[in-house]
Amino acid sequence: MAPRNQTSPLVTDLYELTMAAAFLARGMNTTATFSLFSRRQPDRPYFVAAGLEFVLDFLETFAFAEEDTQYLRSSGLFEGTFIDFLEALRFTGDVWAMDEGTLFFPDEPVLEVTAPLIQAQLIEPILINAIGLHTMLATKAARCVQAAGGRGLIDFSLRRTQGVDAALAAARSSYLAGFQATSNVMAGKRYAIPVTGTMAHSFIQAFDRESEAFAAYAETFPQRTVLLVDTYDTIQGVLSAIPLARKMEAAGHPLVGIRLDSGDMVDLSRRARALLDEAGLAKVQIFASGGFDEFRIADVLSRGAAIDAFGMGTKVGVSADVPFTEMVYKLVRYRDRDVCKHSPGKVTLAGEKQVFRRMNPGGELKEDIIGCRQERPPVDTRALLHPVMERGRRTTPAPSLARIRETFRGELPKLPVKFRQLVPPAGAYPVRISRQLRALQPKAAPQG
Amino acid sequence: MAPRNQTSPLVTDLYELTMAAAFLARGMNTTATFSLFSRRQPDRPYFVAAGLEFVLDFLETFAFAEEDTQYLRSSGLFEGTFIDFLEALRFTGDVWAMDEGTLFFPDEPVLEVTAPLIQAQLIEPILINAIGLHTMLATKAARCVQAAGGRGLIDFSLRRTQGVDAALAAARSSYLAGFQATSNVMAGKRYAIPVTGTMAHSFIQAFDRESEAFAAYAETFPQRTVLLVDTYDTIQGVLSAIPLARKMEAAGHPLVGIRLDSGDMVDLSRRARALLDEAGLAKVQIFASGGFDEFRIADVLSRGAAIDAFGMGTKVGVSADVPFTEMVYKLVRYRDRDVCKHSPGKVTLAGEKQVFRRMNPGGELKEDIIGCRQERPPVDTRALLHPVMERGRRTTPAPSLARIRETFRGELPKLPVKFRQLVPPAGAYPVRISRQLRALQPKAAPQG
Repeated sequence: MAPRNQTSPLVTDLYELTMAAAFLARGMNTTATFSLFSRRQPDRPYFVAAGLEFVLDFLETFAFAEEDTQYLRSSGLFEGTFIDFLEALRFTGDVWAMDEGTLFFPDEPVLEVTAPLIQAQLIEPILINAIGLHTMLATKAARCVQAAGGRGLIDFSLRRTQGVDAALAAARSSYLAGFQATSNVMAGKRYAIPVTGTMAHSFIQAFDRESEAFAAYAETFPQRTVLLVDTYDTIQGVLSAIPLARKMEAAGHPLVGIRLDSGDMVDLSRRARALLDEAGLAKVQIFASGGFDEFRIADVLSRGAAIDAFGMGTKVGVSADVPFTEMVYKLVRYRDRDVCKHSPGKVTLAGEKQVFRRMNPGGELKEDIIGCRQERPPVDTRALLHPVMERGRRTTPAPSLARIRETFRGELPKLPVKFRQLVPPAGAYPVRISRQLRALQPKAAPQG
Repeated sequence: MAPRNQTSPLVTDLYELTMAAAFLARGMNTTATFSLFSRRQPDRPYFVAAGLEFVLDFLETFAFAEEDTQYLRSSGLFEGTFIDFLEALRFTGDVWAMDEGTLFFPDEPVLEVTAPLIQAQLIEPILINAIGLHTMLATKAARCVQAAGGRGLIDFSLRRTQGVDAALAAARSSYLAGFQATSNVMAGKRYAIPVTGTMAHSFIQAFDRESEAFAAYAETFPQRTVLLVDTYDTIQGVLSAIPLARKMEAAGHPLVGIRLDSGDMVDLSRRARALLDEAGLAKVQIFASGGFDEFRIADVLSRGAAIDAFGMGTKVGVSADVPFTEMVYKLVRYRDRDVCKHSPGKVTLAGEKQVFRRMNPGGELKEDIIGCRQERPPVDTRALLHPVMERGRRTTPAPSLARIRETFRGELPKLPVKFRQLVPPAGAYPVRISRQLRALQPKAAPQG
């Protein structure tokens, strides 16, 4: 597949470039390792790894365009020799990472970069941004999938995401986490995600009568009609849909469903279900949209809503309750020296790492151990970080999104229920530090 | 300026295309008007209009690429005649809008599109997304500018925004609202925003001693050094910075400042200030970063923090307390008929509109009146919506961001203080509906 991410390396913080210039001036460009991990977030007891493919696309095509270096020259901030260096710069490092769709926990590195210091430093903002965004969205979507208990979920977030690339990320990450489809046509094209969608209120309003609008739509799309029934009065809308649904049934292309987009979803869905059932339309599904997230899905289902599938918009597309991750990218090794940082409340573990996962005999996750990359794996554990890029090239072709999704389908059920409740438990999933990694830390103590 | 937004029209919801196909099949493509406005949001008493330039770029270059129509053909959803129609489609409509940097309020249209129904419908998701994102970020930034009371603010949000588009939008919108600079180099290039930034913790860690790192940086960038002092121990860091600052002063290129990024900002900033002042370094500024938003700025300043400028990251870049707008785009007129929608809690005013603003004699905003576009302006009011695009072309060239920023600088002080407090007042800024617009509404009542 062609690279999908053409992000310029100029999408970086100025301090990455000023640091690089200072490093270069002193010939400080030997190998460094940075760890990417999330700090603890109270409302997110677990994370779903996502965004790796974007990072690998970015690194494989890393190069400053001429207009970018021209801008830097004209800025007057840098010497010509530094800009010449940037012009020739490519990413030649190694990356270890968890597969997309892997569950992970706070403090666990989801990715590590080992590269000449300047390269490893310059890519920091994009790595944090891409892995942070995709992981945040995949995690939010996984919570919705769990709340929906097998009902279908569709991504409707395009209009309210924070930009177009966020919309594409929302479609991809939510499909990865188990959504069935997206309304975003570009995401459908780019990631081979099923696209769905039928009509908005404006469609109904463009006709003199609601029933005319319904009939017109069904005529053009007999195979895939879902009627939006709440433009004027929801129950009236359902009553208008029923005769058409009968006609469609008789003609051999039954109505797929109706959609509710406002009002009391529990009451309206039950009344709509009863009306449809009485009319012999038990197979007509009820879709619901408008302000849903995992909490509201759980709420309406617990109160007996008769909803078959949910359209998920704003609150999922921006992860409204937790709209950012605490993802950070920290230097852990430089010039054969393991390094760490000790600012109050912000401790980083020194050294190149591995995450080892131990399962219960029943197949559930038991505990994770953050260890040294080179240590012998503890018995009965599986290492989660793999070499995914060597000397600037992917070690294997990008897996399809469908395959990543299939992998993730098996992951979430392995997490003990108490760690995946919507309101998180007091206790966190057990993540230990190995003895060997712990032993490394004092040697890397701060220096005055 | 060359178009900056190359967003494909395929970035749309599938239902926009299915509705379009149904409209086309019936020859329903006469002129429609849609209004873009925000519904009421409790924590946002006012909004700062932004994003118009992106919308105009998108509309001026609106065209489906061949690979996009190819995808639609291969989807099997549409008839060939419809896709032929899309291939030839350009945007030929009119747009009325408020200038970027205009204050506006819930229910007021910030933009209206009048175009053949299908065009006006297809562009819906991008319009809501772009105006919503930029407006949300400019509004958040304006709140920070107000809280900072004249102190400098710098956008540091790149790594934590929801994608790269959002990062560029955050840099642009915050500069529009009064920030002084951004760390985002690409935003600096694209929008001619000043870029700043010096060093991260990893820079300090790459040296054996903090003081070596400081000296190395100052040697490379003598004119613009800000030393990050909290990698190991903040007060120790300040003490390491002082001898270097004296040397720099003596050499004629004084240290610009120090930066605190963790810990108790009130206590540390006051202690740092005292140490610097005692050392005769009263001109060395104190920068602070790490988790700031308008609330935390107000808090630390009220407790006497000695901070000269703030780096604004995550919470501003994602507008963390209100991470989305309730922006909607509603059909208000079609085929000489004013239309509206009456779902519970979601009422839309029918008809093409204008927003009239009345000022107090003292130059403060007094009230707004939402009226009909064609009505005579009420006395002593100013109309906020202008024709910005006619038959698919801009009516005037895009204004520079610097000019928009200059305009906005005068706007916020005109809003009475009670409507721009951080914790919003019980009462909302007065927005009335004109008699003429009100008279229009019954005629557009729902039809069964």
